Amino acid sequence: MSGIASLADLRARLADLPEGDNSAAAAIAERQSRLTKPLGSLGRLEELVAWLGRWQGRETPRLDEVSVLVFAGNHGVVARGVSAYPASVTVQMVANFERGGAAINQICKSVGASLRVIPLNLDAPTADFTEREAMTEAEFVEAVAAGYDAVPARADLLCLGEMGIGNTTSASALAAALLGGGGERWAGRGTGLDDAGLARKRAVIDAGLTRHKSHHVDPLAASMIFGGRELAAILGATLAARRHGIPVLLDGFVATAAAAPLARLNPGALDHAQVAHCSAEAGHRGLCAELGIRPILDLDMRLGEGSGAALSVSVLRAALACHLGMATFDEAGVDERG
Amino acid sequence: MSGIASLADLRARLADLPEGDNSAAAAIAERQSRLTKPLGSLGRLEELVAWLGRWQGRETPRLDEVSVLVFAGNHGVVARGVSAYPASVTVQMVANFERGGAAINQICKSVGASLRVIPLNLDAPTADFTEREAMTEAEFVEAVAAGYDAVPARADLLCLGEMGIGNTTSASALAAALLGGGGERWAGRGTGLDDAGLARKRAVIDAGLTRHKSHHVDPLAASMIFGGRELAAILGATLAARRHGIPVLLDGFVATAAAAPLARLNPGALDHAQVAHCSAEAGHRGLCAELGIRPILDLDMRLGEGSGAALSVSVLRAALACHLGMATFDEAGVDERG
Repeated sequence: MSGIASLADLRARLADLPEGDNSAAAAIAERQSRLTKPLGSLGRLEELVAWLGRWQGRETPRLDEVSVLVFAGNHGVVARGVSAYPASVTVQMVANFERGGAAINQICKSVGASLRVIPLNLDAPTADFTEREAMTEAEFVEAVAAGYDAVPARADLLCLGEMGIGNTTSASALAAALLGGGGERWAGRGTGLDDAGLARKRAVIDAGLTRHKSHHVDPLAASMIFGGRELAAILGATLAARRHGIPVLLDGFVATAAAAPLARLNPGALDHAQVAHCSAEAGHRGLCAELGIRPILDLDMRLGEGSGAALSVSVLRAALACHLGMATFDEAGVDERG
Repeated sequence: MSGIASLADLRARLADLPEGDNSAAAAIAERQSRLTKPLGSLGRLEELVAWLGRWQGRETPRLDEVSVLVFAGNHGVVARGVSAYPASVTVQMVANFERGGAAINQICKSVGASLRVIPLNLDAPTADFTEREAMTEAEFVEAVAAGYDAVPARADLLCLGEMGIGNTTSASALAAALLGGGGERWAGRGTGLDDAGLARKRAVIDAGLTRHKSHHVDPLAASMIFGGRELAAILGATLAARRHGIPVLLDGFVATAAAAPLARLNPGALDHAQVAHCSAEAGHRGLCAELGIRPILDLDMRLGEGSGAALSVSVLRAALACHLGMATFDEAGVDERG
């Protein structure tokens, strides 16, 4: 039970976040300095192990239980013609996940992660944000709590992804409301819009921003107005992971936008999270830059489903294998610097 | 047996390279278009599977046997004070590889690759290239043939890496001779030079380039003059893999420079190779740009040993798992684009 029953509960959790374990991170860095390699020469692999240890609170990090959560939602704004695919695809892809036929299933098997898919009221799309708030406060809080409660109490790493036809439109509008700019700055082609579709998507985003006087709303309200249930759930899950001592890999554009309100309200709120992959979706690079986050991978992917997050687990596994398995200079009888 | 007994043999092999299998690549692209994802949304994962199939000559690529070869050599130019570590470390690190204590051992285990380390006359360093050619023609051809012959006749993927104190100096001088510029353009801090060391390294490179009138030598001669045995072996192994139908992952700066003479002599000679990781070593990004190659990973690593190449195997495994395991739109009953 999350105990999140209102926006006030959510704000209270966010104002009181656990800090990372600096002594675990320092012990990891000290061991890294003795391993048989030039100082710092494993680059981000070393940073990532220290990050795992800091947020797991362990001098010897683990990746025994890697959990991938994929939240799915439907979006009223799809009626405006903002996606290359019909809304029916959301529930069909959830079934595909459940039968093991999607990309995320194969990647999870490849990297040794467990997958759970959580559909959120797919029969009841959020409202079209050009007409009214996508969610009522009650709907928003319910979706946040669903995400919060889906996080296992014990995991070594949590990957967060999403599925929802139309949700790059929601994510773009949310990013615009949080960071300024409009459809021109944030909208991309999503699942494959043509030029006319992209122009329509930009106009829809701009109409929503104008309708809701977006530059005056607070970050959680922006998530309620423009987001979707799967975005709200990712926000809740990111917060829960912080409280449970679980490092988080955010997948791509939608997942990053979903979690961004946390960082707008509390600048350190995403310190336990990495962005796993820089999406080819247009707005993601700029969003990561605004948040001061450098994604781990950059492979032109733009699929969602948690695919980039799960893929980057393999980098973390190799990084941890180096940390745990390498000999020190002393053990190996290798001369140190001249 | 390579049958490479002279520079003329090597030039003859290089002038007569097998082409890739376009029909295998086309069949792979056709299947990718039917899988349950927006067209192209797995980005480089899709490209990499098509590349594997093209150079394996298989419509259904495999990664059952992934072989990592690490060549080691010693460099007379180390006497000029161009490395932060003493030359003794090369043989000590080879012993560390053989005992399983280095980063590459852990990464190979993590990604399911087999490792073979091949020391090349470590007791007899190459000559100091500021005084004379690093290798005689006979020494160069012998090292190329050692690399050529080390490639297994049957493998699904070959990762090429190196170990050799001083070899970023050789690689920088080689890159300069092939592509222009001098120490300022190509030298980096290697295993961790300070400012004075870096200035010394640049001056040593420039002295070598002047001594050998580098801008008038042909690419294979440049490898003989400035390279080392492990660089020559990587050149030979890259060529052998092409002839055996084995795609290649080149590790980092040194491995890329080592293979670069092939591309200077025959523009398509590295089409069966990817650069696995963009090294933090200063010259690598520019070298990849000159060769028109975009590395797969960019994680601030600068270790060598084949570490970046082996790490990127995990990306290829996930890519192949998606290709082989995903359902098509028809199979999954997912609606196509609206």
